[in-house]
Formats: sequence, structure tokens, C-alpha cells
Amino acid sequence: MKSKFIVIEGLEGAGKTTARDALVAELQGHGITDLVFTREPGGTPLAEKLRDLIKQGIDGEVISHRAELLMLYAARVQLVENVIKPALARGSWVIGDRHDLSSQAYQGGGRCMDATLMATLRQTILGDFSPDLTLYLDVTPEAGLQRARTRGELDRIEQESLSFFHRTRERYLTLAADDDSIRTIDAMRPLERVTADIRLTLAQWLQEQK
Amino acid sequence: MKSKFIVIEGLEGAGKTTARDALVAELQGHGITDLVFTREPGGTPLAEKLRDLIKQGIDGEVISHRAELLMLYAARVQLVENVIKPALARGSWVIGDRHDLSSQAYQGGGRCMDATLMATLRQTILGDFSPDLTLYLDVTPEAGLQRARTRGELDRIEQESLSFFHRTRERYLTLAADDDSIRTIDAMRPLERVTADIRLTLAQWLQEQK
Repeated sequence: MKSKFIVIEGLEGAGKTTARDALVAELQGHGITDLVFTREPGGTPLAEKLRDLIKQGIDGEVISHRAELLMLYAARVQLVENVIKPALARGSWVIGDRHDLSSQAYQGGGRCMDATLMATLRQTILGDFSPDLTLYLDVTPEAGLQRARTRGELDRIEQESLSFFHRTRERYLTLAADDDSIRTIDAMRPLERVTADIRLTLAQWLQEQK
Repeated sequence: MKSKFIVIEGLEGAGKTTARDALVAELQGHGITDLVFTREPGGTPLAEKLRDLIKQGIDGEVISHRAELLMLYAARVQLVENVIKPALARGSWVIGDRHDLSSQAYQGGGRCMDATLMATLRQTILGDFSPDLTLYLDVTPEAGLQRARTRGELDRIEQESLSFFHRTRERYLTLAADDDSIRTIDAMRPLERVTADIRLTLAQWLQEQK
């Protein structure tokens, strides 16, 4: 099978790390072991510097929504060109912790940025490049943030209002409903059921690719 | 007179600092003394961090042209929203060392980036915001780089090939010919003639604004 780009998406505290472990276990069960892991924003030295600016901000400076979006895409295009595409080209599978859908949900949904601006920027910068499969882990903002808080201090994005995360979740759900390459996983259930669902979803998807 | 945004543009070593001094002297002669100075990329704490990343790069990492362009626009939108627009709104005049025309010339011309991509990004991010007057200081790349070299080590952009700067200059000249808000100053002449030309050009322009 040709190598694939699989992305895990969801709100803070949705359980992306656990989902990744389940994904890896299932891929290995199918003999797929040459894996490259990425995270966004980040994943190259420059993209990690942009991640710090986006997540920590600058004391006393308001970061405009457009500047935030542009920095996210700058980091993304570095990662796509320098890491993801080369990995896929040499036959590795790429497992991404977030990708473009996060911008669509957080900036498009959460920050209410203009849909035309969002679509134009995506098409202009990424063209037709997109993940083969996205697993969207659906949790309520209340449940997700409760989990995220137990990890320590919240960053600039995590400190947004609850309504911001409600808009983000709504956008995730809308986009997932419209796109067959995005599979929604109910991540509010007990961990073992979520894990089993992820493995089953992936196994069925792998079957469909044959 | 309503406050204005005036930009000085040109290749490295074109004499932008000297031009700014001449501009300021002429403005003061007309009683315009409330001036705010900006430089691009840069001019806010976040934009200055982006400037460092753009100018110095990251050891061993290739920066894609698209990532560079996105970082330039991220810095620009921060500067426009947080510095330039507020200054103009409170009645200050803004004197910019570079603005959007630099991206059009260096990235569009020098890097041969797609014209549609460039125009789309500009319109998407800046909308109709543009300088009231741009003074483009025209020098040959050979003359400009010779002056720039005497200042010390060249940065990532300044280390580009001579053909890159020839394409950049050609684009500057083409765009200036098409846009009445851009005035081309022949900056290859002796300094006192360049300075006199800048002051005369500005004085005539101020007269036209009345």
C-alpha cells in the first residue's frame, strides 16, 4: 500500500496522545512500522519557534487573528515541504498531531474568521495537499478543558473562553460531516471503548484502501 | 491636512536612511512634525522576532518561499493594526522604511512567486490599506550591494544572487510605472541631487494633496 498521511484532531484534552498509541498499535498489527510523527504547529526548528510565538504570545502585544493565522500557515508549509512530503515520498507513513483542520476549526470556527479568507489562504498555500485520513476525537469543551487543566498551566489558546471552544467544536463537527476523509470518534466514552473504536475505524479504512 | 502614510522603498544600499532624513526635513519645513517611524519587517515586538527569523533563518533549515512570505505578512499585519493605523487615526504621519511593495518586488519579482498568489494574499490580508505615497529609490543591484557590503556582514536575503536583485529591481520599476502613488527617484546620482529630488518630489506631492 502507498504510504499515507493520517491526522488526529480534537479539542485540548480530547485524548490525542492515547489515540495515537492505539493508531500505532493497529498499524503495526498490519505490518506498517515505518512511521514519522509530526505535531502542529511545529515539527521543524523554524515551525517550533513559530509555535512558541503563537502559544506564548508576547507580553503586552495583541496578536491579530490574521497574524496568528499566517504564522500557523508559515509553520504548516515548512512542515509539509520539509518533513511530511519527503517522508511520504520515501515510503514512510506520517502520523500528525493536528493539521489544517485545526485552523479551520479554531480560527474559522472559534475566532469566526471569514470563510473566504480561510479557504483562499488554504488553497493558495497548500493547494490540493491534504491528509488521507483524519480521526476527529469529539469531546465537549467542558470535559476536554478539565483534562487539559490537570496537565498544568494553560497556554494563550487554551485560555480562550468556553464559547470559543464551543464554536471550535461545532466547526469540527460540521466539517467532519461534510468530508468522508474525516471520521468522528466519540471520545466522551470510557477509554477502552474509544481505543477499540479507533482501532476498528482504522482497520476498516485500511481495508477500503486495498 | 489629514495624516499620511509615506513609504521609502528600494534595494539594499539604495540610500533609504538618507532619504528619510531629507523627507523629514521637508515635512518639518511644511510644519508637519508629529511623525512615527516604522520599518519592515518589524516594528512591533512580535514583528521584530519574525524579522530575525526571516533575516537570519535557522541553521540547516531551508525556508520555503511561501513560509517566508507568510511570515512577512504576519509581521506586516501586526504593524499595520497595532502601530500604523492607530498612529494615523490620532493624527500622526507615518514614515515607513519598506512596506508591501517590498514583498511585491522581492518575493514576486526576485523569488518569481506566482502573481495570483501574491495578489490574493495581499488583498486577503491587507484589503485596501496602502501607503499614500511611496518613494522608490532606484539603484542598480551592483551599486546598492557595494554600499550594503561596507556596512558589514550580509543577511540571508542580502546573500541572494545578483540575478535575484536584478529581478527585484525590474519588478520595482514595473510596479512604479503602473502606480501614480509610487514616485521613482534616480538614486544613482550624487547625494545632494538625490536629496534635492526627494524634497522637490515631496513638496509637489504635498501641494497636490491640498
